[in-house]
Amino acid sequence: MKRRNSRVLKLVIAYDGTGYHGWQRQAGTSRTIQQVLEETLGRILQEKVTLVAASRTDAGVHALAQTAHFRTRSAFPCPRLRWAVNSLLPPEILVRRLEEAADGFHARFGAKGKRYRYRIRTGSLRPVFERAWVWHVRKPIDLAAMRRAARSLAGKRDFRAFCHQEAPARAAPAGRRARGTVRTLRRLSIRRAGREVHLVFEGDGFLHNMVRTIVGTLVEVGRGKRAAAGIPAILASRDRRKAGVTAPPQGLCLEKVRY
Amino acid sequence: MKRRNSRVLKLVIAYDGTGYHGWQRQAGTSRTIQQVLEETLGRILQEKVTLVAASRTDAGVHALAQTAHFRTRSAFPCPRLRWAVNSLLPPEILVRRLEEAADGFHARFGAKGKRYRYRIRTGSLRPVFERAWVWHVRKPIDLAAMRRAARSLAGKRDFRAFCHQEAPARAAPAGRRARGTVRTLRRLSIRRAGREVHLVFEGDGFLHNMVRTIVGTLVEVGRGKRAAAGIPAILASRDRRKAGVTAPPQGLCLEKVRY
Repeated sequence: MKRRNSRVLKLVIAYDGTGYHGWQRQAGTSRTIQQVLEETLGRILQEKVTLVAASRTDAGVHALAQTAHFRTRSAFPCPRLRWAVNSLLPPEILVRRLEEAADGFHARFGAKGKRYRYRIRTGSLRPVFERAWVWHVRKPIDLAAMRRAARSLAGKRDFRAFCHQEAPARAAPAGRRARGTVRTLRRLSIRRAGREVHLVFEGDGFLHNMVRTIVGTLVEVGRGKRAAAGIPAILASRDRRKAGVTAPPQGLCLEKVRY
Repeated sequence: MKRRNSRVLKLVIAYDGTGYHGWQRQAGTSRTIQQVLEETLGRILQEKVTLVAASRTDAGVHALAQTAHFRTRSAFPCPRLRWAVNSLLPPEILVRRLEEAADGFHARFGAKGKRYRYRIRTGSLRPVFERAWVWHVRKPIDLAAMRRAARSLAGKRDFRAFCHQEAPARAAPAGRRARGTVRTLRRLSIRRAGREVHLVFEGDGFLHNMVRTIVGTLVEVGRGKRAAAGIPAILASRDRRKAGVTAPPQGLCLEKVRY
């Protein structure tokens, strides 16, 4: 709904999620990315700011390009606002871009696709410099087996078995059909990058914990604890208990949101 | 001096120096790399451990391959000792290698050369993920001018003007001649690496703050604040006040010690 004399501002944000309780504002803690950003923007603009983000990243998860929007009555110029907010934000959070968007822009409902990267560090010695951005898997993992398993996951599937199911699904906005737990995973690539293995996920949307549950399950395949051929049965079960562990949050990074 | 029933153990250590008061044990703080390592090794071996390192890195400086030695009466096998010490060390410190060395091995006096890397991040936006390992220089820097200046620094020179001079020079050990403030800088390369600029220093030895003072001075050349042609006069002056600022510690990493 358009309001007179108001603008929609779009932000592209990078953050190191270490030590934060995720994106979303929460009662009882001030240490969420959303809350720190809202308070900083609000202080500068002298009005209450409510951000809507493309992805509600979990505690400890990082972002290179989280995208968010808010509505403001302020005429503060965007370049100066970006400079001011970056001067006040803590070093773990940076607004990379800040610009006026079309009035109908919605960071969550307008998102057509997202890309996540999950970094695994292999080898027996724990990482020192990368420790906050990788999952350290000491035992050898078989990438060929993981790739075979990944082929059963790519495409349009019901990912209910790979989704954390504590809360009921949110109501879809007016004009959008509920899509339940079906998502299209357009790409799931697994590549070695030096002493790391990177899993890149591209899709139209992701369920809560979906990437981390897929990574945990694929690592079990890579370690020979379950068969690559067992993935279709997990999908068909729609039962979270059939899938593997949830990989830890620090390996995950939201890399891109497409509109 | 060889003692009966004792061994010399050599360690190769990586550490993230963020938040540490440098390598060297100090009165009044327990947060030095040396102290944490000595206490951890001492707890396992049940004896007092005194480490000697190749380089006494300053507060906030990192290492990929610091090298140190100590003498022990313990017969604890090296692979088990490495495993035990890495299990007890904080995540910022890792013993990469631990092995028995020849009895005469000395981590400091035996070092024939060292390699340091200094990382500069360029561009107007501050780094988020790399913030603890780079110096952020917002204004453009002219690498060609920096390379011209660097050519006057490579070679065997008296680096007194690029050295922090609070303490008198240590006495050289018996059998070694004092070399004062003359060192041989075998290599000083300046390369762009994505959004970073890396300065790599290889030499037979480095004075206190020498790398950081050279980096600070070269950045002043790169920003047009001083001329590349002015370096020989700084060297000749032997006066620290003629050189530029000391670059901040977090960009510096000890990468290799050669024996």
